Amino acid sequence: MRMGEGVEWGLHCCLVLAWLEDEGPVSTATLAAWFELPPAYLKKRLQALVRADILTSSAGAHGGFLLARRPEAITLLDVVVAVEGPDELFRCTEIRRRGDGVDPAAAEFRVDCGVSTLMRQAELAYRRELAGRTIADALAAAPPAAAERARRRYARMGG
Amino acid sequence: MRMGEGVEWGLHCCLVLAWLEDEGPVSTATLAAWFELPPAYLKKRLQALVRADILTSSAGAHGGFLLARRPEAITLLDVVVAVEGPDELFRCTEIRRRGDGVDPAAAEFRVDCGVSTLMRQAELAYRRELAGRTIADALAAAPPAAAERARRRYARMGG
Repeated sequence: MRMGEGVEWGLHCCLVLAWLEDEGPVSTATLAAWFELPPAYLKKRLQALVRADILTSSAGAHGGFLLARRPEAITLLDVVVAVEGPDELFRCTEIRRRGDGVDPAAAEFRVDCGVSTLMRQAELAYRRELAGRTIADALAAAPPAAAERARRRYARMGG
Repeated sequence: MRMGEGVEWGLHCCLVLAWLEDEGPVSTATLAAWFELPPAYLKKRLQALVRADILTSSAGAHGGFLLARRPEAITLLDVVVAVEGPDELFRCTEIRRRGDGVDPAAAEFRVDCGVSTLMRQAELAYRRELAGRTIADALAAAPPAAAERARRRYARMGG
């Protein structure tokens, strides 16, 4: 059970875009070079963040990506759901109703499956935690000089 | 991002085995018929539970599976980890250290990546919830007559 690497990519790109917010849009090529990631795959992930209103994108020679919202208004859950989709980790397929002699419409099944209720409660705790942490928190957890270093690095890259 | 169906199978089989604990080992064939699941796939999942010391198995004409521990000593996390493996959902590949001009051994990287720390904290909340709920809790959440009905059903199946 594991998320795709796109979540790590998306989160770190959000940090870089926050550090470079005064520099205008940052291109896929620059972000891909920054983290040594395959540009085409990275672009697909970033486009998912655009669809989720986490980034904006612009075309053209000076086009690229910007944060669509303030870092404190982008939660980790926003990024996870944008990249991984809204599916719950645990999917209940109601196997309790199956098998010979079981009436799937029986009254007892009007109450939610206990297994799935417990699994869902745990998952809600996870989502609540992810929803309670933002890109601003991740920025605060980065080394103090990270923003300044990111801007110098961007200048060196000819950004 | 989604768990395999084996977690649902494993949890529900634990419930059935708890209800049928006085009946002796329950075969793969019976559990597969119970939930209309493919026997060979189910057996693989149940063997993973045996390796995790959640079930015991015995061979032979009257062989099958038993709970290896009391229901209150089997957590949902035990079953999830047994079936899905111990991997964390979010894997940090340290992309922050990559790219031209970055010294991957720099002092700043001795502090854990903030992104991965936040993601891991959220995941710990999830694991804590899963570890705080047991098969006994799932049994308690089932309809009151479920145990008795399971025993009657097992008898009808010739168990």
